[in-house]
Amino acid sequence: MLKYDEVAQKIEQNIYTAALAAGTRLANIEELIKQYQVSRTTIIKALDILERRGIIYQQQGSGIFVRQKKKPGYISFIESHGFTNDQKQQPSFTKVIELTQVKPSQTIAKALQCDLNEDLYLVKRLRYINNQIHCLECSYYRKKIVPYLNIEITSGSIFNYIKQVFNINIGFSDKYFEVTTLEADNAALLELPQGSPTLYVEEIFYTSAGEPFDYSIKHYHYKNSKYFVQSQLS
Amino acid sequence: MLKYDEVAQKIEQNIYTAALAAGTRLANIEELIKQYQVSRTTIIKALDILERRGIIYQQQGSGIFVRQKKKPGYISFIESHGFTNDQKQQPSFTKVIELTQVKPSQTIAKALQCDLNEDLYLVKRLRYINNQIHCLECSYYRKKIVPYLNIEITSGSIFNYIKQVFNINIGFSDKYFEVTTLEADNAALLELPQGSPTLYVEEIFYTSAGEPFDYSIKHYHYKNSKYFVQSQLS
Repeated sequence: MLKYDEVAQKIEQNIYTAALAAGTRLANIEELIKQYQVSRTTIIKALDILERRGIIYQQQGSGIFVRQKKKPGYISFIESHGFTNDQKQQPSFTKVIELTQVKPSQTIAKALQCDLNEDLYLVKRLRYINNQIHCLECSYYRKKIVPYLNIEITSGSIFNYIKQVFNINIGFSDKYFEVTTLEADNAALLELPQGSPTLYVEEIFYTSAGEPFDYSIKHYHYKNSKYFVQSQLS
Repeated sequence: MLKYDEVAQKIEQNIYTAALAAGTRLANIEELIKQYQVSRTTIIKALDILERRGIIYQQQGSGIFVRQKKKPGYISFIESHGFTNDQKQQPSFTKVIELTQVKPSQTIAKALQCDLNEDLYLVKRLRYINNQIHCLECSYYRKKIVPYLNIEITSGSIFNYIKQVFNINIGFSDKYFEVTTLEADNAALLELPQGSPTLYVEEIFYTSAGEPFDYSIKHYHYKNSKYFVQSQLS
């Protein structure tokens, strides 16, 4: 873990351990440098991560403050460290429907910046939170970058696995989404009537070196999923 | 405008002016400090803004790179500098349906952290992009913070107006959303059949001092709106 990630986690933990209310002022940057024995750059980057995650807000010239906690029952739409990591607070599990090797379609090849002959893993899964179907996920992994997957691995967090085993650093993602209606096959898997509304999400995940490695399509169960985003606007 | 915002804008402009391709490596931090004649802290904050906006990615130890440009036709779901500012690339306009003074409901009072006797402006508007209905917006502004609004102001960017005239710095927002179906009145305004799917968004906007000033409810037209988010995962 990077130093500033570590410091960000410690500060966050201290906020929750002390149960600090929204609006509480934290120590200033000079004091944080002393307290955590790290450089100014590390503190600035750690505070920035916490700002991005909606934990704190920084007010130019007057300090660093604790933000309002999110309402319960909503999942973070942005902190995509993978489904398993994001759902730590609520019991969740995964059912693998399909795991095969395929070649990309034109669309997928374009998204993954690969040629039509490359080998991909296709992983189709149902994700559950609190024993309710949360979403149907269909992901394409480039074998070139993720050389091995099996049922056991894909039943858990693929992201954790590839980080640990293949040493892949997950960098960023492009997420495109819209509201649409379900066709018969996906409706059946989500146990909803055909034509039900759904949040349809296409996401391309990149390594920290900027290489796309996973193209993922999700259909969310509209009755079982609500989302939140804490934005920084300034 | 804050110094690091200014530097971020300049760097972004330079990327687009030079039409740099995805994956192109930018100057390193030392070079950027020299080039823009600002402090290390300012450069780090500017780069962070650009990373958050999906313009660049930073790879520990190996440099700063240009990110893929988003696909056309999708609106940014996060950069809520207000509808008008976010839609600069596409022709957009606003139709005011209602502008009145009201007292908050329990829910609104809770969201705005105000008491039930406070005066609010209720602003109901239809937003259009490319001459198509994009969303129906119903916003509640605290008169205590936004003392004056009229039809002319609410036909344009309320955020730009209150920044300039009341000197309000917009800080951050909490955004909660889900997919649901339209009831008769909202369906009629969006010119869709009752029961059509919609993206339903509740957002609380805070000043940079952490004070909630606007509670906004949006129903998006599911056929006319698509969104994107560029996430930073590391």
